Amino acid sequence: MGGDLGPAAVVAGIADSAHKNPDIGFILHGPRDQLAPLVAKRQTLTGRCEIRDATGVVEMEDKPSQAVRQGRDTSMWSALESVRNGEARVCVSCGNTGALMLMSVIRLRKLPGIYRPAIAVLWPSQNPQGHNIMLDGGADIRADAKDLMQYALMGTSYARNGFGLKRPRIGLLNVGTEEHKGRAELKEAHDLIEANARSGDFEFVGFVEGRDLPGTVCDVIVTDGFTGNVALKTGEGTAKLIRELLRDAFAHTPLSRLASILAYTSLRRLGKRIDPRRSNGGVFLGLNGTVVKSHGSADATGVSAAVKLAFQLAQSGFSEKLAARVASASLLEQDADTEPTTHNGDTE
Amino acid sequence: MGGDLGPAAVVAGIADSAHKNPDIGFILHGPRDQLAPLVAKRQTLTGRCEIRDATGVVEMEDKPSQAVRQGRDTSMWSALESVRNGEARVCVSCGNTGALMLMSVIRLRKLPGIYRPAIAVLWPSQNPQGHNIMLDGGADIRADAKDLMQYALMGTSYARNGFGLKRPRIGLLNVGTEEHKGRAELKEAHDLIEANARSGDFEFVGFVEGRDLPGTVCDVIVTDGFTGNVALKTGEGTAKLIRELLRDAFAHTPLSRLASILAYTSLRRLGKRIDPRRSNGGVFLGLNGTVVKSHGSADATGVSAAVKLAFQLAQSGFSEKLAARVASASLLEQDADTEPTTHNGDTE
Repeated sequence: MGGDLGPAAVVAGIADSAHKNPDIGFILHGPRDQLAPLVAKRQTLTGRCEIRDATGVVEMEDKPSQAVRQGRDTSMWSALESVRNGEARVCVSCGNTGALMLMSVIRLRKLPGIYRPAIAVLWPSQNPQGHNIMLDGGADIRADAKDLMQYALMGTSYARNGFGLKRPRIGLLNVGTEEHKGRAELKEAHDLIEANARSGDFEFVGFVEGRDLPGTVCDVIVTDGFTGNVALKTGEGTAKLIRELLRDAFAHTPLSRLASILAYTSLRRLGKRIDPRRSNGGVFLGLNGTVVKSHGSADATGVSAAVKLAFQLAQSGFSEKLAARVASASLLEQDADTEPTTHNGDTE
Repeated sequence: MGGDLGPAAVVAGIADSAHKNPDIGFILHGPRDQLAPLVAKRQTLTGRCEIRDATGVVEMEDKPSQAVRQGRDTSMWSALESVRNGEARVCVSCGNTGALMLMSVIRLRKLPGIYRPAIAVLWPSQNPQGHNIMLDGGADIRADAKDLMQYALMGTSYARNGFGLKRPRIGLLNVGTEEHKGRAELKEAHDLIEANARSGDFEFVGFVEGRDLPGTVCDVIVTDGFTGNVALKTGEGTAKLIRELLRDAFAHTPLSRLASILAYTSLRRLGKRIDPRRSNGGVFLGLNGTVVKSHGSADATGVSAAVKLAFQLAQSGFSEKLAARVASASLLEQDADTEPTTHNGDTE
């Protein structure tokens, strides 16, 4: 209920997903009197979409703490509850990010050993899988060395289950020059991640820079939520500027307008590749259960992309595998001084 | 001497600038036996380019501290010396950023009251002036509230003298949601900048997000050098990815290749707008003298853009005006109740 475009966009999106994927079913949370007519209009949802009546709505402007205090009757709470009690495999929401994260932590609880959950977001890239993963995208403005190491483990799990990468390459975001590799917690995180690379079965490529977020030197980029959020929005802003300038460039003269008609399929191909709707879906990691946060402004295409991602993660048993991975790392850490030598019962 | 493409690219760039601008002259620093033949080939430089023999070169990989210790015979040292003794108005260098900054601080000295100099970089934007200014782009990975306030003042001076903006709009970079506006030094900086807006004759628009770096809500974006450097490189990486995808999109089929020929001028127009060579030139702020850092990989076009920026700043008396602005703010601060913050390391 909480997205910018309201429930109609959400229902249109899940109808798209239902049409493409016969193995998917939905529990829709919100005021029944609003949702039932929207669902009834979509034949493809017949028999595949339950409605769970919830009258309250978390607004986009609500403070997270306030949303949680007053939130028991909201669609957001109800959706998380359906993951908590096992009826649903994944929760997808277009609502207020801060409220969704806080409510997720309260209802689903953090995995044992996890201090800071993270939001993993997707960057278009030239890597074969078409996207890189960055975390934290803004769940918490702080992250210490241990948090960053856990982000590396969780990002590995996501890359494996979401993209089928056997041995993901992990990078730690920093500034470029030697002299500037100065933040103490980043040096510490570097060593901690390096020490866990073998047991975690990922390849650690060391420090990477902002240009590597859409680059090809690694698949997963680890950073704190402040830096990650600034980078994410910088990337979005840059892509938006270029789209606008491209549009202006082709509207400049009659000849360029003619060229734009001929170039239509080429431009459309490019548009699809960098369309933020198709990279839609921030995944909350570190909880007992999977939550996918869709962009608040997502339309049907965006919602459908987030649902597709949620389905892939659910199919692969992502939530359970991630929990096992974090648990095995926590055990390892108790033997901090002993170099881990064996590959201990990895479930992925 | 220090750029990736060597002195030939630098000489080609200054020849371009000399051709376009009859009021400009050069002192070129480096090994005379290498530079003299390059200069001799460019008629437009005849009588307008002195060579100052300097045999040493700071390499791109040199550590700044090492470059400074062993640097007295280098072209970089010699170039800064010519600004220090008043022969040159501005120093332009394609060399090692860290070494250039450290050497600049040692030779030119910081302005009274400035603790951390900053590198101001340009972002293409849809603002009328075509670019936004961001600082710090990576001079120092840390910045406390007082540093950020000084960046606002220095950015104001740059926007006024570089772009002719009478009353620049200043934003402070942060993450989006209310709940996340949490870094203590950012709240403090917010209040300090706000308190100086009237006397500094700028408009403070408050917190801005990564998407506002190439946006239109402000002209100058203030942040610490860690965040700024990550954002800068993220923007560069994103633009590079889109350029590559655009090229691929137009090479996809014979029809799209035909379209690209028709679209050539439109694409060229876009290319010029987002060409990083044309936004080339990071300006070191907070020193007794102006230093413009060109991209290490700058070709003739890039060098010429950096020289143009240097010329504009010199013409406007930027260095003196900036010094006066910082001095007046320092005086103000002595009268204010605001306690200057202590350098509290990094809290993360």
